[in-house]
Amino acid sequence: MTVKSFVPPLRTLMGPGPSDVHPRILEAMGRPTIGHLDPAFVGMMDEMKAMLQYAFQTKNELTIPVSAPGSAGMETCFVNLIEPGDKVIVCQNGVFGGRMKENVERSGGVAVMVEDEWGKAVDPDKLEQALKENPDAKIVAFVHAETSTGVQSDAKTLCDIARNHDCLTIVDTVTSLGGTPVMVDEWGIDAVYSGTQKCLSCTPGLSPVSFSDRAVAAIKARKTRVQSWFLDLNLVMGYWGSGQAKRAYHHTAPINALYGLHEALVMLEEEGLENAWTRHQRNYQALRAGIEAMGLSFLVAEAQRLPQLNAVVVPEGVDEAAVRARLLDEFDLEIGAGLGALAGKVWRIGLMGHASNMKNVMYCLGALESILTDMSIPINGGAVTAAQKVALA
Amino acid sequence: MTVKSFVPPLRTLMGPGPSDVHPRILEAMGRPTIGHLDPAFVGMMDEMKAMLQYAFQTKNELTIPVSAPGSAGMETCFVNLIEPGDKVIVCQNGVFGGRMKENVERSGGVAVMVEDEWGKAVDPDKLEQALKENPDAKIVAFVHAETSTGVQSDAKTLCDIARNHDCLTIVDTVTSLGGTPVMVDEWGIDAVYSGTQKCLSCTPGLSPVSFSDRAVAAIKARKTRVQSWFLDLNLVMGYWGSGQAKRAYHHTAPINALYGLHEALVMLEEEGLENAWTRHQRNYQALRAGIEAMGLSFLVAEAQRLPQLNAVVVPEGVDEAAVRARLLDEFDLEIGAGLGALAGKVWRIGLMGHASNMKNVMYCLGALESILTDMSIPINGGAVTAAQKVALA
Repeated sequence: MTVKSFVPPLRTLMGPGPSDVHPRILEAMGRPTIGHLDPAFVGMMDEMKAMLQYAFQTKNELTIPVSAPGSAGMETCFVNLIEPGDKVIVCQNGVFGGRMKENVERSGGVAVMVEDEWGKAVDPDKLEQALKENPDAKIVAFVHAETSTGVQSDAKTLCDIARNHDCLTIVDTVTSLGGTPVMVDEWGIDAVYSGTQKCLSCTPGLSPVSFSDRAVAAIKARKTRVQSWFLDLNLVMGYWGSGQAKRAYHHTAPINALYGLHEALVMLEEEGLENAWTRHQRNYQALRAGIEAMGLSFLVAEAQRLPQLNAVVVPEGVDEAAVRARLLDEFDLEIGAGLGALAGKVWRIGLMGHASNMKNVMYCLGALESILTDMSIPINGGAVTAAQKVALA
Repeated sequence: MTVKSFVPPLRTLMGPGPSDVHPRILEAMGRPTIGHLDPAFVGMMDEMKAMLQYAFQTKNELTIPVSAPGSAGMETCFVNLIEPGDKVIVCQNGVFGGRMKENVERSGGVAVMVEDEWGKAVDPDKLEQALKENPDAKIVAFVHAETSTGVQSDAKTLCDIARNHDCLTIVDTVTSLGGTPVMVDEWGIDAVYSGTQKCLSCTPGLSPVSFSDRAVAAIKARKTRVQSWFLDLNLVMGYWGSGQAKRAYHHTAPINALYGLHEALVMLEEEGLENAWTRHQRNYQALRAGIEAMGLSFLVAEAQRLPQLNAVVVPEGVDEAAVRARLLDEFDLEIGAGLGALAGKVWRIGLMGHASNMKNVMYCLGALESILTDMSIPINGGAVTAAQKVALA
């Protein structure tokens, strides 16, 4: 065995994440490692918390990155808030609602499922009904931006309903944070988790989370220990320092990954949240014009569509995997496949973070048009021109 | 709030980890991100598995890096192997044995503690006795290299005893892997975890693990679901591909962190495991000569001492934290404090991975000597010369 250094191909990442990482962030990740209790690192942690509060639009003291990918951020919310026997209403309209159910059950809770069609937003009336039928429910969980379908649900309305029934809320914002508004305090979210590899333009591996005072009080008042030692917020808080003078060692933080996230957040602050949302919206409008010019359609109704993740319906009879393989081989361009019930039926085109730019929109439309044409799939032309028209408007 | 990019100070890391990261590894981490299902990435994953098998000296098919720090690697072993009510013998001789106990209990198991003094190796006779008294024990867990004390236990003997009593073994090699021999197959270890930020010279954030066929069979035959969705090896195996043709999406792997580990393993392969062990031993001998020349002593008896992590006894009446603070401020040199029962009583000087080199040995001895002298603490001189003599021998 003689393995050589790995030099990755230079891709354009327009799938469901990871999305293109900005060179500034890659450069930050390669800076010299320092200790996880170094005073200089502790200062960086404080800055990181403040910038995450800005990204989440919250004053929550417990706002930190979990030292593992988004799935671990999800698990952090569930294992800390659920005690054995707790009833949790889970609204499912895609893959990640299903993962929430797994988390509830493995945490010893009882999941009550509120199902909506994949590709449709969570229906508030169904949640209201489920809460009336389950007055003993303690938590409501739902996905704000379903990465598997590109649907956005009305988080504010869902949180209002949950609060009226005296429930805590757990909200998945993995794909929304930094791309579309996530207003943790204004909407009254109690526990929220996200990922770094979507609209924050960072590498995968960390999961920003935030917990309301109500949620923290519930965690501190637990009658049973959190089942995960690694994710136990009562211990993690000691390291990330909720009001404590001295940081207690819990686990060794992923130093260089945190350098990357810090730089991503500095860039978000420089651009401004509102400007980032506008940019995601504008590039989506251009992509949409091109997709529609080709005669292709979107899975999701316009009002519920995420600008940063577009599920495009695969035309009848087309081998979607062959199209993706050619995009990757001939254009170094990655777009995503459908997941679960949507496998084979949609492509997922991401315009997230740094990847949401006009160059990528044009490149993706041009590449898709030329490959579909080459495969003799009947589409209309002029996708790039249509997109450009919107961009210049 | 206007936060600037974070530019870390340039430290020399000679604490208990993270240790100095080689520039080649930092450079690898900053390479362009690609997708976690990209064929190029999948090829890299296969190379990584083969190189981890080499590092662990095992043919175990299930040999992968967990996408989170060492603590999560520990938790992976415990939550996958323990079912509710299982009895686990935990040998504790430092901080990390205590963390194992936490993991056993939170996984629904019953921990039977076999305690040894901090700074002493695990006593095989005590384990034998505990197994005789607990014939229903299913698992034996111990720390091969206690990061909190710098003690090495006799893993082979402990595993032999466990196997004779028909128990599976879980072994912590966080600080030993790459620094001193870890022979997973020869010693018959069933589940082993490590970290990347110690003798592999990599950044923190990943945890290499390996499971014997016997352990995998036990995991597949579980009657209950693994309590953690994120760490459930039945699911993780689908992505890391134990014999499966197609990788199933589980979570988004921390791509760039894995670039770093890949490069670290390429470097280990280039140097050769035996040469790495010899280097760690040689530099320890030089450090030891210098420490003893100063008149300072080690916590651990020589035969049980880890060459890569040296617990040096703080002289009577010395404010050990003040010494560390000055080393950091004036020399940009990080050494570690004592943990738990040893807080205030020892310094932990790491010579791990890339940090195990003669330049660091000389630098650390010189810095320590000059600061202790400046603080009017009575020590002998000539530490650097003594070390150099050993190095040139």
